[in-house]
Order: sequence, then C-alpha cells, then structure tokens
Amino acid sequence: MKSVILLFASIAFCPILSAQNTDSIIIRKLFDEALLHGESYRNLDYLSNKIGGRLSGSPQASKAVVYCSMTLGALHPDTVYTQECMVPHWVRGDKEKASIKNTKGVAHEVKICALGGSMPTPPAGVKAEVVEIHNLDEIRVLGKAGIEGKIVFFNRRFDPTKISTFEAYGGAVDQRWSGPSMASRFGALATVCRSMTPDITDFPHTGSMGYNDSFPKIPCCAISTRDAELLSSNLRTDPKLQFWFRQTCKLLPEEKSYNVIAEIRGIEHPDEIITFGGHLDSWDTGDGASDDGTGIVQCMEVIRLFRATGIRPKRTIRAVMFMNEENGTRGGKKYAALAKEKNEKHILAIESDRGGFSPRGFSTEMPAVKLAMVLNWKNLFLPYGIYDFSEKGGGSDIEPLHKLLDVPLMELIPDPQRYFDIHHTSQDKFSAVSKRELELGGAGIAAMVYLVSEYGL
Amino acid sequence: MKSVILLFASIAFCPILSAQNTDSIIIRKLFDEALLHGESYRNLDYLSNKIGGRLSGSPQASKAVVYCSMTLGALHPDTVYTQECMVPHWVRGDKEKASIKNTKGVAHEVKICALGGSMPTPPAGVKAEVVEIHNLDEIRVLGKAGIEGKIVFFNRRFDPTKISTFEAYGGAVDQRWSGPSMASRFGALATVCRSMTPDITDFPHTGSMGYNDSFPKIPCCAISTRDAELLSSNLRTDPKLQFWFRQTCKLLPEEKSYNVIAEIRGIEHPDEIITFGGHLDSWDTGDGASDDGTGIVQCMEVIRLFRATGIRPKRTIRAVMFMNEENGTRGGKKYAALAKEKNEKHILAIESDRGGFSPRGFSTEMPAVKLAMVLNWKNLFLPYGIYDFSEKGGGSDIEPLHKLLDVPLMELIPDPQRYFDIHHTSQDKFSAVSKRELELGGAGIAAMVYLVSEYGL
Repeated sequence: MKSVILLFASIAFCPILSAQNTDSIIIRKLFDEALLHGESYRNLDYLSNKIGGRLSGSPQASKAVVYCSMTLGALHPDTVYTQECMVPHWVRGDKEKASIKNTKGVAHEVKICALGGSMPTPPAGVKAEVVEIHNLDEIRVLGKAGIEGKIVFFNRRFDPTKISTFEAYGGAVDQRWSGPSMASRFGALATVCRSMTPDITDFPHTGSMGYNDSFPKIPCCAISTRDAELLSSNLRTDPKLQFWFRQTCKLLPEEKSYNVIAEIRGIEHPDEIITFGGHLDSWDTGDGASDDGTGIVQCMEVIRLFRATGIRPKRTIRAVMFMNEENGTRGGKKYAALAKEKNEKHILAIESDRGGFSPRGFSTEMPAVKLAMVLNWKNLFLPYGIYDFSEKGGGSDIEPLHKLLDVPLMELIPDPQRYFDIHHTSQDKFSAVSKRELELGGAGIAAMVYLVSEYGL
Repeated sequence: MKSVILLFASIAFCPILSAQNTDSIIIRKLFDEALLHGESYRNLDYLSNKIGGRLSGSPQASKAVVYCSMTLGALHPDTVYTQECMVPHWVRGDKEKASIKNTKGVAHEVKICALGGSMPTPPAGVKAEVVEIHNLDEIRVLGKAGIEGKIVFFNRRFDPTKISTFEAYGGAVDQRWSGPSMASRFGALATVCRSMTPDITDFPHTGSMGYNDSFPKIPCCAISTRDAELLSSNLRTDPKLQFWFRQTCKLLPEEKSYNVIAEIRGIEHPDEIITFGGHLDSWDTGDGASDDGTGIVQCMEVIRLFRATGIRPKRTIRAVMFMNEENGTRGGKKYAALAKEKNEKHILAIESDRGGFSPRGFSTEMPAVKLAMVLNWKNLFLPYGIYDFSEKGGGSDIEPLHKLLDVPLMELIPDPQRYFDIHHTSQDKFSAVSKRELELGGAGIAAMVYLVSEYGL
C-alpha cells in the first residue's frame, strides 16, 4: 500500500517538481546576473546625483523622463514609448522659516517644510497661538471657539511598536492629508504637522496634503519630530506661546509630462501583459533615491535581466516608470485609463515603491485562487530571503488598474525599518542605499515577473 | 467521527496553544518595550562615539569594561562581575602607506592597512615585484622559484552571488589568515591581501591573521578592493611593477583585561544557565559600532528588558561581554574554561556578532531533538520578521563552550547584506546603525532567552 501511495505521489508531483527545479535554476540565474553585473545602483547614482529631486513639472522630472527613455532604449526591449499626462506643478520656494515665541518674547527657531500642495503664508508669515491635536475628532469637539484664529498643531505620534513602519504610517498620515481642511473648517489660520517618522530626528518630512474646496485653503507645514516634541513640551508650560512660520511655495499652471514604458513582447501570449513599475517623480527635499529612484532602477533592471539572461517571456512584460505619484497619481491614472481604452488584458501589476532595502516579500491584492498559485512559488523565493506574502495591497500607481480593470496587484515588500528615517526629507539620498540590497530587490521582481510570464495568473 | 477527532485535537493541542498564546503575549511585551524605550541605540552611541575603537589591550578597551560594568549595574541584575584574562596588545602605529611603482618609475599611492597581528615592515618599508595569487595552492605550484624575494598579492574575490555574505567571507578569508605564512614558507618578503568585501570600495579592511612559527614572520597588509583591482590590472600590462608599503605596527607585552558578566538568577532552576553575549573589543580602524558594539548593547538590553517587563526567568540568564574576540578569543576561552572548572550547567549560549541589522533568524548548533524544540517556536518569531533557522553554527566567543562542555549554540542572524561594506574598516561607525533594526535584534534575543528560560532546552 505504501509503495502504491509513493508511486501515485511521484506521478502526481514529478512534473511540478521538475518545473520548480527548472524555475529555481532560472531564478538563480536572474539573481546571479543582478549580483554580478546589476546596473540598478549605477543608474540610481545618475538619477539621484546627476538629476536629483524630480518633483512633477520640474526640469529634473523632464530630465528623468529622457534619461529613463534612453537607458531603457539601450537595453533593446521590443519597444520603448511614453504616455503623455498633465501634472500639477507646485514649487516650494526658498524662504521656509519658523520659530516658537514664548510669552516672555523669546523666539526659538525650529525646522519645518511646507507640505506638498500647500498655499504659501503671507510674505511676513503667519503667527498665532497654538492648539495641539492628537486626533482629528478633537477639532470637532473644540469647535470654532477653540480653533478660530489659531494654528493647529497635529502631533499624533507614529506607533513605534508596529513592526511594519508602513502600518504606523497608515495610522498617522490622515492628520497630514486631511488635517488642514478640518482645521480650516473651524477657522484655523494655518496648520503644523508632526513629521511622519517613528524616531526623534531633526529633519522635517514633507508629503502631500489635500484641500477640501469648501473651506479656505490655509498654509500648512511639517515640523521635525524633535521640534514637535519641543513645541509640545513648551505648550504644557506656556500654553499662550505663539508659533510663527513663513513659506513661499506656490502652485503654477499644470505641465505636460510622461510615463515611460518599455516592453518585451511575449512569445506565446503577447496579449497577456504583466506590468511592473515605480515612480519617476519624487519630492524636492532630497534627491529621491529611495522614493522612488530605487523602484525605477529596479524595474529598468528587470528588462536588462531578461535580456542579459536570454529569457524570452511567454507573456508580455512591461516596465512602467509612472509620473506624478507623489502629488496626483496622474501617471498611474492615465496608464489605467489607456489600458482600458485599448482593451488591454493585464494579468498582474507589481509596484516597487518602498525603498531599495533587502527584499522580504510581496504584498498581494487578488482573488484567493490566484493567490494560491502565487503561494505555491514561495519556496522558490526563500533562498533569497523573500519569505513573506502575508501583507495585503498593491501600490498607488497600480491601484487604478485594479479599480478600472480588476487587475491583480502586488508590491515588493523590502525590510521596512529604515524607510521612514529618510522618507520625504533631505536625507533621502543616494548614500542611504545599499547596492546589494537594491540589486536583490530588482532580481526578486524579475523572478516574480518570470514566473507569471511563464505560467500566467 | 469528525467531532471526536476535533475533540481529541483540542485536548491534545490546547495546553500547547495556550502556552504559545501566553508566550506570544510576553514576547510582544519584550518587543514593545524595546521599540518604545530601548536603550541599545543610546548605549551604542556612548560605546562608539565616547569610547571608540576598542582593540584588546588599549585604553579604550579598558574604558569599555568599566562602562559596561556600570551600565549593567544600573539595570540591577542579581550580580555583575568580571573575569580576568590576559590579552594580546597589538598596536597599529600611524605610518601606513603604500604605492604601486611601474617599470617607468611612476608611483601611484594606494590604500592599505596592516592586518591585525602583523609584523611591521622595516622603517623604509618593503619593496618588491608582485605575484598575484587567487588560490593558496598556487603558492605550492609556483614554489620558491616563483615566490622568493617577492610580495605575494592575494586577490581572490568575494563571491557576490552568495546571498549570505558570511558564506562569501568564509570562501575568501583563508587567504587573509593563512596566506602570510604560506607565502613566507617559500621565501616571500611580505603579503598584500584583497579586502574582505563583495563590493569595490576605497576602504581597506583589517582583520586577524595567524603566523606559523615554523616560518619567518613577514609583514602583511590589506588593500582596498578598488586598489586591488588596480594592482591586478596594472600587473597584466606591467608584470615587473613593484609594490611598496610601510607599516609601523607592533606587538607589545600582553595586558590584563576582562569579560564583563551580568546575571539574573532563575527562580526555579538557578543552576541551569543561558549565556548570551557579544564582544567588547573591536578593531581600531573604526569605532567598532557594528563589530561588535551592537552585540554588546543588545545583550545588555536583554537584561534591561527582563527587568523593565518584570519577567522573572525560571532559569539563570547571563549576559556576557567577551573580551578579545578579534585577535585571540581569550575571553571566550576563559569563560568556557571557568564554566568547566566550576562545573556549571549551560543549557544554551547565544552570540550576537553580525551587526545590528534587522533580525532574520537564528543559526543553531545543537542535537536534532533540541533543534526540534526550537523550531516549534518559529511561529512566535514570525511577526517580527525572524523566520530563518536554517543556518548552522554558533559564534566564535561561544564556540569554546561547545567544544569543552558540549553546550548547544545559537547566533542571531541579522540581514547580512550591508555588513561587509563596513566590517573592520573606518566605515564601521555609529552612523551606519539603524535604531529600529538594532532594537529589534535585542528584543529577538530576549525572546529566545525567555523561551529557553521558561522551558529549558
């Protein structure tokens, strides 16, 4: 009986095992090529140090479009093309300054930066007493009586006990996005938001915010966590202190910009498309190396890895450098709209937008039957430290594909511990990226793209 | 029938499940405490920036002994004590210099550092033609005819395709340790060793080497990988070029030094001891933050975490700051010898000596039945990104415990990608350490120590 079971098992599992063996050899090839000859790090050096921060509408964003088009072209995929989209053009200005003035008249300078999309202050700045808020609901409770004529200070901390810093980000970022309009509704003059980082540091973190057109658009800035702690402790002993800040940002007319796309057509099912991408734009505070230069160079590297290893995908694989993720997602929306218009069949979209740290897993957003297929590949990733497929979700550039066309999504999940040390700050620079960690991430995406190109989803 | 099976299953598994539930709550407490109030990073700041590089026998090593004794004392374990041991006292000197002189007489300066324990060169340096070697066996093949009067240049590369950089290190480090005496045996004047790192960088990596007393003790140095590539490519076009280097290192008389130990006695089985440690000494090139300041502060933190969370261990837990791991392992040997002498019953020893990067797993060196018990705890570690228990081995400071007393070993396995970027160089400094990654590692060790203190091994 035992031997019959064994016989049955060997018949049943042999083809799977042998396919997995072939796959593991090919995946090893992809990782070897990335670790031996990977070009992600060199490309990131160019993107970060020669081009720099690439805010939508800026000359640097335009340069990045040209650079990626040319770099991808040199890899000889089947096509490289661009997709036009209009993007917001917000500029920071150069006069950001802030201070806490106590009731004895002594001023202490603190570090801020305008939130992306914010209005400027009047030229002389805005000065007022401060109301510290930890929960958006507190604004409603305080009402006009407590808020009007004041600066609202959003000081809810990141929860450092979350092992995923992205979960902690999710628990704090509403105050940055929705806080300004909530405060404006009750007559606040301006808002100051604690930076989105679990640690106490000196660097303010910018990031997008959204105005509600029903209320006055008041200026809003981020304050470093160290200065947020200071302001909070000063408020306890001197609640009538005043906060002053000035910023000279402004919103210019929209600009024409582009997604950049490179494609290797599938040799068996060219109509089935696998998209993988990062975003070309970045904030202007750093050089955008980790957000999202790393995603861009990893996705370009996937194209190079397929060419260098000679793997001919059965299905069409497409690297997309999305424009304007940070303040509009116009590129992602345009890509999805065009995919719908052209009636394209997208079988999977993968995003890389969490930095170039050691890859740990993939998040997923897909029906259970597809997920089961992906989980069947887990062992193929384990030798490379990629073990975690438990997180849900995709990424903001590919979300429109899911909404419009119900495309299954994935996101590369790198180690999350260091990301919010640098996210949206002057510290997001090339030197914070590790070559090996970056190249491993690119190879990880390539491996997933290979498997889906081979077996569909 | 189904309900009978379910009933049986619930009877059989309930106690295990409920224990695991209690354990998971306690482990969560340890991680929360570390992430909210962890002191590892602050202690590391002191050790790295206020004390600095702590080569055995140096004043900094003595300061580190005092600092750790006092810091541990302030945590109120049951005892803090030291163990005396004699350590080598090698000093680098300050005149390291090297150049490649081509046959046209043009010299190009390159970056070297003496290997730890090396002899100095004569005051004017040593100059000779160069033989490049990739495999130690080549020396035998070349013999006296090919080696005598030359400088032997060991230039075997790290294999960058190894996902574990420690595996790549294992595949290259023999040339650093054994190369000098092998070369001396055939009459070499000196040796130059390619630095132990997968990447091409500007920093020479020091590290220990061992002389064979049967052959002349020739001076040996490490050269940065960038300069190793340069030397190798120059040798191809100009094989008669000369390499010159000078170093003024020397071996002074041995010094008295100490292991530092802190202990919380077990409330049920005080005679069963769990040791966990890192090493107090470091190389002198950097500030020793990652090798092994991180291991030291993590093990001190384990004591703090037990006190702060109020966990009273059933078995005795003992943090050991070993002295002289880098060039003698005298502290580790002394600790094991005394443990044997005192007839102590050590049930597990854990080392942390691979940097303070995000914890990924534990390596193990123990009989299968004990390993099975450890693997049973895997799910308790998974929420913290600790998933990999596949690697074999302990660490060099606890190896003597295994050899003398057959103690089961473990080592904390952090993400290995960045370690050899900085290992034994001027770049091993506090700024290369991430607070969250460091604190997570300390909590990981605490969790393992807790489980073994609770259930034995």
